[in-house]
Amino acid sequence: MWGENFHENSDRDREMMARLYPDGMHGAIAAGLSELLGDRVEVRTATQDQPEHGLSAEVLDNTDVLTWWGHATHGSVDDAVVDRVYSRVLGGMGLLPLHSAHFSKIFIKLMGTSCSLAWRNSADTELVWTVAPGHPITEGVPSPIVIDEQEMYGEYFDIPQPDEQIFLSTFTGGEVFRSGCTWRRGKGRIFYFSPGDQDYPVYHHPDIKRVLANAVQWAAPQRSIDFVAPAVVNEPAPRFRAQLAQDGEVSA
Amino acid sequence: MWGENFHENSDRDREMMARLYPDGMHGAIAAGLSELLGDRVEVRTATQDQPEHGLSAEVLDNTDVLTWWGHATHGSVDDAVVDRVYSRVLGGMGLLPLHSAHFSKIFIKLMGTSCSLAWRNSADTELVWTVAPGHPITEGVPSPIVIDEQEMYGEYFDIPQPDEQIFLSTFTGGEVFRSGCTWRRGKGRIFYFSPGDQDYPVYHHPDIKRVLANAVQWAAPQRSIDFVAPAVVNEPAPRFRAQLAQDGEVSA
Amino acid sequence: MWGENFHENSDRDREMMARLYPDGMHGAIAAGLSELLGDRVEVRTATQDQPEHGLSAEVLDNTDVLTWWGHATHGSVDDAVVDRVYSRVLGGMGLLPLHSAHFSKIFIKLMGTSCSLAWRNSADTELVWTVAPGHPITEGVPSPIVIDEQEMYGEYFDIPQPDEQIFLSTFTGGEVFRSGCTWRRGKGRIFYFSPGDQDYPVYHHPDIKRVLANAVQWAAPQRSIDFVAPAVVNEPAPRFRAQLAQDGEVSA
Amino acid sequence: MWGENFHENSDRDREMMARLYPDGMHGAIAAGLSELLGDRVEVRTATQDQPEHGLSAEVLDNTDVLTWWGHATHGSVDDAVVDRVYSRVLGGMGLLPLHSAHFSKIFIKLMGTSCSLAWRNSADTELVWTVAPGHPITEGVPSPIVIDEQEMYGEYFDIPQPDEQIFLSTFTGGEVFRSGCTWRRGKGRIFYFSPGDQDYPVYHHPDIKRVLANAVQWAAPQRSIDFVAPAVVNEPAPRFRAQLAQDGEVSA
Repeated sequence: MWGENFHENSDRDREMMARLYPDGMHGAIAAGLSELLGDRVEVRTATQDQPEHGLSAEVLDNTDVLTWWGHATHGSVDDAVVDRVYSRVLGGMGLLPLHSAHFSKIFIKLMGTSCSLAWRNSADTELVWTVAPGHPITEGVPSPIVIDEQEMYGEYFDIPQPDEQIFLSTFTGGEVFRSGCTWRRGKGRIFYFSPGDQDYPVYHHPDIKRVLANAVQWAAPQRSIDFVAPAVVNEPAPRFRAQLAQDGEVSA
Repeated sequence: MWGENFHENSDRDREMMARLYPDGMHGAIAAGLSELLGDRVEVRTATQDQPEHGLSAEVLDNTDVLTWWGHATHGSVDDAVVDRVYSRVLGGMGLLPLHSAHFSKIFIKLMGTSCSLAWRNSADTELVWTVAPGHPITEGVPSPIVIDEQEMYGEYFDIPQPDEQIFLSTFTGGEVFRSGCTWRRGKGRIFYFSPGDQDYPVYHHPDIKRVLANAVQWAAPQRSIDFVAPAVVNEPAPRFRAQLAQDGEVSA
Repeated sequence: MWGENFHENSDRDREMMARLYPDGMHGAIAAGLSELLGDRVEVRTATQDQPEHGLSAEVLDNTDVLTWWGHATHGSVDDAVVDRVYSRVLGGMGLLPLHSAHFSKIFIKLMGTSCSLAWRNSADTELVWTVAPGHPITEGVPSPIVIDEQEMYGEYFDIPQPDEQIFLSTFTGGEVFRSGCTWRRGKGRIFYFSPGDQDYPVYHHPDIKRVLANAVQWAAPQRSIDFVAPAVVNEPAPRFRAQLAQDGEVSA
Repeated sequence: MWGENFHENSDRDREMMARLYPDGMHGAIAAGLSELLGDRVEVRTATQDQPEHGLSAEVLDNTDVLTWWGHATHGSVDDAVVDRVYSRVLGGMGLLPLHSAHFSKIFIKLMGTSCSLAWRNSADTELVWTVAPGHPITEGVPSPIVIDEQEMYGEYFDIPQPDEQIFLSTFTGGEVFRSGCTWRRGKGRIFYFSPGDQDYPVYHHPDIKRVLANAVQWAAPQRSIDFVAPAVVNEPAPRFRAQLAQDGEVSA
């Protein structure tokens, strides 16, 4: 679980964050995963203020699924770290960009679009509707999830058409948002999930914790994955010895 | 433009329909297409009460895009006519199932799912948001379209994941619906669009007329299409004369 | 594992089948699943010649994933059984239609297309290439799988665009085929896999057995699934009490 | 039509190129478009050796569809020009990356993957099979297209799953390749097409010219498109005045 850990320490938000997220948002999300998945996972946290943002090659070499929350300081994330995460995703690591991570360097790099959206912070109620019942990420999740107060994220969300549309959200203001989406990139799986904001206690919501726990399991790589990103291959020899048949030629 | 033409003639709805749709819903939709597309299209109507529901082989042989509105009498549509339409869609004819046609035999047959949904008739306001800007069906369409009063259609809508998600709708009740979806079946293109109901004058709404006019153009087949549904082919001869190369064998 | 069990007992093929598949093709496929999955699955077989084709309501109520092989007698499969399987798939049961089951009633009903293809029985070598590395169905599967002799299945294969394209096959004749495809229908998952034919011992191939074992696990429903097919819902009350805001109105 | 124009002027290839492509590859492609589309298009060329690679803001402001051929000098394409093209694609310009442009900066940036593949230059015959009959890009194109000699491009091709799979290619060596793929990014449409190489006269092939002419028309933006890339929007006011209803509350 990677957290920007900025709001937690900013003069403006320190007091509110201490109340909503005394262990930081990354701490709250990590605690939710541990609570629901127990021994099935080893949960660790890393934050942007650590050396290499806490994402050294060694750390990534031991990470199956990376959960990413960032907002205010996307621009100061080191490109070398972004490239390292990118390569590991193509090699098979799962990635869960959360909420304002729609504007993180790593998400934009993997999507190939601007990832821009419409937003308004006016304590809208958000309903999160399941449109892919039977998908593992929806296991045990009610439809809709009701989030009493949340920042509004609305369309147009500039993303590639998702491989799988899992959740759609509506807001008291009448807006709609593709709030739960999956894509495959290389050998890795990505699940973007928008609920969650520094101003609201969304990551303590039991249904949101359930979605994240499900998604971590869904995004986990196969046992045998090698985490080597795909690369160009110069095929030395053909599989067939063949030539084009002439018209009318009958096969043996 | 095919219409069930039932509400128009039913004791319960005749008076209301005469006020909302004096030429029938099929008449209103056809008029909208003519108004916006002019000489680019030849618009004809057919109704369920005609022989062969107005969809004889000859009529279909001369139809590029079929628009379908049905609701109360899906069950009495002749299976032979459904099979004829199905075959023509696979052969390249465009199909626009509208609103309650989600439960038409032809739509269910092409989707392979129950096509069930949630609904409530309580004069909700519907907002129709574009999530595929740049798609031809959205040309000249505001986002959102505002429909003051309309039946609510909500998720879960049991359809295959659309090839392209064009519109998403929200309702004053807080629901969401995948209201504009495309699929390809065989050589034919399908656009399902949910706004439109016998109780509300939705088909007179200028933005709805625009969507339908765009969709008719989008769903039109290529000039050279032969309308022959795909069929099994026994390939007489291979294209290559080939055999599997042995390990280490070097290609010529 | 459901088998048509026709070639096994036909005058023409009995001798060959006794040599290639002494326990029937359904027996060979079932044995492969048991060999690779052991206690993780309970494998049972059913055949078309049994009462209700071996697929009574009770049997289906206890089936998580149904594997389907049919070829010569698709037409005599009872529509009532097809409807029962269809409903269970929409409710969450996994389905694996194999090879010539592309023309089974259940596959056509779920796809909404003709499912026709090109074919030639001339002992082509088939190469099965992975195009979705990292997908659970590809775990432990080499790319390409080499099948020395197999019936050729080629494009155009008239199917809806797959949700996930897993495998593509080439043949010594130069043809290509979308040989491994997934779709979701309702709450259920479908994996079509084309390798496998009554004239060749393909189901004894270790890589093919691996694909089927992987696919059975992938298609298995969530623990909490209720196997109830989606149905229409009349929403009694809205989630929001709302009305359209007037232009320029400021939210509370 | 943008061309790298490197092989045309390199010591190694100048002689061969003068024979195969006396007007450069970009010249041959441009001529094919003009031949087939006539007055419907205005075809211009630009090359990497020009100032700003011939792609100034003014040039792009007057470009509806950009066709891109590059190979040997991807790395020296200016990032500022790549960003300019990227922004214009998200705003609605069509893009056709050809053959070795799979490794161009612009294609990788739009895909979010490595875009690596397998290759072998041994004069394989390539067959290009249509798997989306009825798609405008396939209009008038035989299946398969037969290219007598061509570089082999094979899977695994590390791309996001295409929005639409149009063509699949096989080679005399037995390989397969997803040779014709579409994606939407922002408001723009992308068609990658792999046939075409500096060592073979593929761009003089009438069927290849037909595909490119079709694709240019398909990728052209709507008439009203504004070419402004999507950007974040701070929604000032909600569309609905709403609050969450209490359980059991009946709507007005």
